[in-house]
Amino acid sequence: MNQNTRGHDKVRRSYFEVPIMVENKWAKVPSIDADVFMLDMEDSTPPNLKTEARGRIVELIRDPGYLGGREFMVRPNNLDTEWGRADLEAAAKAKAPLVIYPKVRSVDEIREVRRILDDHGSAPEIILIVETPQAVLQLEAIASCPGVTGLLFGPGDLSMETGISLFNGPTEFSEGFLYARSKTLLVCRAYGLQPIDAVFTADLKDLDGMRRAMEGSRRMGFTGLMSFYPPPVPLINEVMSPSADEIQWSQRLVETYRKGRDQGLAAISLDGKWVTVHQYATAQETLRRAELIAGRTA
Amino acid sequence: MNQNTRGHDKVRRSYFEVPIMVENKWAKVPSIDADVFMLDMEDSTPPNLKTEARGRIVELIRDPGYLGGREFMVRPNNLDTEWGRADLEAAAKAKAPLVIYPKVRSVDEIREVRRILDDHGSAPEIILIVETPQAVLQLEAIASCPGVTGLLFGPGDLSMETGISLFNGPTEFSEGFLYARSKTLLVCRAYGLQPIDAVFTADLKDLDGMRRAMEGSRRMGFTGLMSFYPPPVPLINEVMSPSADEIQWSQRLVETYRKGRDQGLAAISLDGKWVTVHQYATAQETLRRAELIAGRTA
Amino acid sequence: MNQNTRGHDKVRRSYFEVPIMVENKWAKVPSIDADVFMLDMEDSTPPNLKTEARGRIVELIRDPGYLGGREFMVRPNNLDTEWGRADLEAAAKAKAPLVIYPKVRSVDEIREVRRILDDHGSAPEIILIVETPQAVLQLEAIASCPGVTGLLFGPGDLSMETGISLFNGPTEFSEGFLYARSKTLLVCRAYGLQPIDAVFTADLKDLDGMRRAMEGSRRMGFTGLMSFYPPPVPLINEVMSPSADEIQWSQRLVETYRKGRDQGLAAISLDGKWVTVHQYATAQETLRRAELIAGRTA
Repeated sequence: MNQNTRGHDKVRRSYFEVPIMVENKWAKVPSIDADVFMLDMEDSTPPNLKTEARGRIVELIRDPGYLGGREFMVRPNNLDTEWGRADLEAAAKAKAPLVIYPKVRSVDEIREVRRILDDHGSAPEIILIVETPQAVLQLEAIASCPGVTGLLFGPGDLSMETGISLFNGPTEFSEGFLYARSKTLLVCRAYGLQPIDAVFTADLKDLDGMRRAMEGSRRMGFTGLMSFYPPPVPLINEVMSPSADEIQWSQRLVETYRKGRDQGLAAISLDGKWVTVHQYATAQETLRRAELIAGRTA
Repeated sequence: MNQNTRGHDKVRRSYFEVPIMVENKWAKVPSIDADVFMLDMEDSTPPNLKTEARGRIVELIRDPGYLGGREFMVRPNNLDTEWGRADLEAAAKAKAPLVIYPKVRSVDEIREVRRILDDHGSAPEIILIVETPQAVLQLEAIASCPGVTGLLFGPGDLSMETGISLFNGPTEFSEGFLYARSKTLLVCRAYGLQPIDAVFTADLKDLDGMRRAMEGSRRMGFTGLMSFYPPPVPLINEVMSPSADEIQWSQRLVETYRKGRDQGLAAISLDGKWVTVHQYATAQETLRRAELIAGRTA
Repeated sequence: MNQNTRGHDKVRRSYFEVPIMVENKWAKVPSIDADVFMLDMEDSTPPNLKTEARGRIVELIRDPGYLGGREFMVRPNNLDTEWGRADLEAAAKAKAPLVIYPKVRSVDEIREVRRILDDHGSAPEIILIVETPQAVLQLEAIASCPGVTGLLFGPGDLSMETGISLFNGPTEFSEGFLYARSKTLLVCRAYGLQPIDAVFTADLKDLDGMRRAMEGSRRMGFTGLMSFYPPPVPLINEVMSPSADEIQWSQRLVETYRKGRDQGLAAISLDGKWVTVHQYATAQETLRRAELIAGRTA
C-alpha cells in the first residue's frame, strides 16, 4: 500500500495554527471551524514555555475532546534545536496521528525523524513545511521519503532565509516565490501528496484581499490552506470546497459516462465533446470530495 | 552525429492536431496551411474508433499525398493504455518519420518506446509532450534520451493532473504553469531540441487575444505552436516567422561582420557597438530560417 | 572553513563593468562610486585588443591604485575560446583576488578553472555568471564547487542562447526569466553565496524605471547589481543598502533581544510578538551590513 495516499479520505481544507499557551486564543478554539488544528511546539511557543506546551499537547493527543472531533497535527521543533528530539519523542510516545515537521533541509533529517518515530512504534502521517532554500532545491528526494503525505509551503521563514520579500502589493505574494510554490505543487502531484499553501496577506483585516489570495492558491492547484488567524477560516472552507457549478458539471459528466458505458458505447460525448477516462476520474474525485464535505458539515 | 539536431532544416512553426475520424474536419485538412500535421490516435480519437484510426493513419504514412507534401507526425496512445503498444508498432512498421509521444512520466518509458521502434528498424524523430508532473520534474533526463528532438508543452492534461487552472483571465496562461513552461524551454535549449508551446485561450473566437498569447509564447523562447483549431494557424505562421525588421537587422549584421572579417579587422562594430560571434551566429540563424520559410511559401 | 563565506565582510552592492580599452570610458573610472569594478577581457574587449587588454589588467592587478582602493574582479574569456586559458593563467599568476567566470556550462569546466588557478598557487574567490541554459539546469552542482562565492545572473547571453526576450515592457524583465532568476537566488541562499542581479532596462536614460527594476531585484532577494553604465551606480548603492527604517527596526529588535537575554528571560517580545532567534540573526546581519557601509563611505 502506498502510504502517501493516507488522509485522502479526510476533509482537509483549512488548517489552523493554535498558540497553545495563549489562554485567550486557546479559549476560542472550539468555536473555530477549521478542518485540522495544528498544536504547535515551535514558533508560536516561546522558549521558556516549550516544556509546558509539550506536556499540554501530549495531554491533548491522549484526550482530544476539546477539539470537538476535528483532526489535529503536532508540530515539534526542528531536530537542530534543543527541543526537537524531546518534542518528537513525546509525540511518538503519545501516538500523534499526524506530525508536521518544520524547517527540513535534507533527506537525512527526514530519515532521522522516521527513526525516532519508529523507535516508539509510531507511524503518523508526516507533513513537511517547505521553508528553506535547501528543501526547495531537493524537494523531490525529501518529499518522496516514506510516510510523507503532504507539503505545506511556508513563505514566512523562506522569506527570512532567502531575502525574498513576502509581498508585492497588499494581497499578492512576491513573484520571487513563484518557482518555490510551483515546485511544491508539482512535487505533491507527482507523489500523491496533499499540497497546502499558507494564507499570507499584508493586511489581516482585508478579507476581500484574502479571498483573492485564497483563490490564487486554489488556481495554482493547492487544496488546503493554513491560517494563524481565525477570521479567514470560513473563507478557506468555502474557497477550497467544490462549487455548486463544479458539482453539477461533475454529476452530469459521471452520469453520462456511466450511462454510455452501460449501453456498451465505447465513445461517450457530453455537450459535443468526447469524455476521457481522465475527466471521468476527475469528476468522480470532485463528487467524492463534495460528499465528504457534506458528511462533515451535516 | 547528434540526432537531436534532426529537423533543424525544416520549417516548423505551426502544428495542427487532426481529428482523423471526424469527416467534416478531416475534409478541411488540405486547406489548412500548417507546417506539420499531427495524425492523432490519442485524445481526439474515441475508444471505439482506435483501431480504425490506426489503420487510416498507417495508410496515410504510406501515402501522405492528401497532406500536400507537408510534414506530419503520428501520436500513439501512451504505453500504459490498451492501445499504446499496437499504435507504436503500427507507426514503426509503416516507418512514420516523426512520432509524438504523450503523457510520458519516466526515462524507462522512453527507453521502451525506443525499443519498440528499434525492433521494427524504425528511428523516427521523437517529440515528447510535457503534460505530467513527473515529466516536468525529471525533464532533463527524459529529454536527453537519444532520438528526442522536441518537446511540446501540454497544459490541458497538466492542468487535469495537477489542479493548476488553465487560465488567468481570457488570454493568459495561469501563472501556475510558468515554472513548467520555463523549464520546458530551458531543457530544449540545453539539449538542442525544438520548443513547442500550445495555443490555449479561453475564447477560441478571440483572435486578438490569441495573437497576444502567441506573442507571449514567442517572447518565452518557443519557436512552434500547436493548435487543434484551424483559424489560428495563419497567425501562428506569422508570429513564429522572423519579422521584416529582424531580417533586415540580421542582414546588416551579417554583411558588416563578413566585410570586417574579409578586411582582416579583428574587431567589428555596428551602430557603435562591437559585434560578437554569438550575435553573428544568431543573425545567420534568423536568415537561415527566413530563407527556409521563403522557400516553403514560394 | 567554508570558503564560500569569503567576501561576506565586504560591501558589495554595485558592480561596474569597465571597458578597459575605451579610453574616454576608462578615464571616468575614478569618479564612479562602484563597490566592485569588473576588469573585462571578455565581451567588452574586441578580439584584436584581447592581448593588450590582458596586459593592462595584469598591470592593474599588481598596482590597482587607479581604482582608489575599491575591490575589483577579473573576467577572463570562457575556456572554450582561444583566449580563455591565457586569460585565466595571467589572472592566476598576477594573483587576482576575485575572478568572475562567464558562460559556464558544466561542473567539469569549473574543475578545470580551479586546476589552472591551483597550478599557479592562486585561490581567488570565484563568481560565476549564470547565462547558459545548461548552467541553470545544473546550478546546484556548479555552484557548490569549492571556491565559488557568488553567482551573477546574466540575462543578455541567456536571452541569445534561449530565445527568451529580454523585456516585457520598458522596465521589466520578461517573465520567461523568472525561473532562472529564482533558481539562481535560491541556490545562492542554499550554499551561502552572494546573489547578484544585472541592471537591465530597455531605456538606459529612464532612471525611475531603473530604480523600479532595482527594487524588484532586491525584492527577489538579490544583494548586488551589475551595471555597464555609470549613472545607475549611485542608485544601486542606495537601493542595496539597508534603509533608515530597517536599521532602526533592527536596532530595536537587537536591543530588546539582548536586554531580555541578559535579564534571563527565555521568551522575549517586541511590539506584542515573540522574537525568534532567526529574526535576531537577521537584524544583526542588517546592522553588520549598515556598519560596513557606513565604514566604507566615512
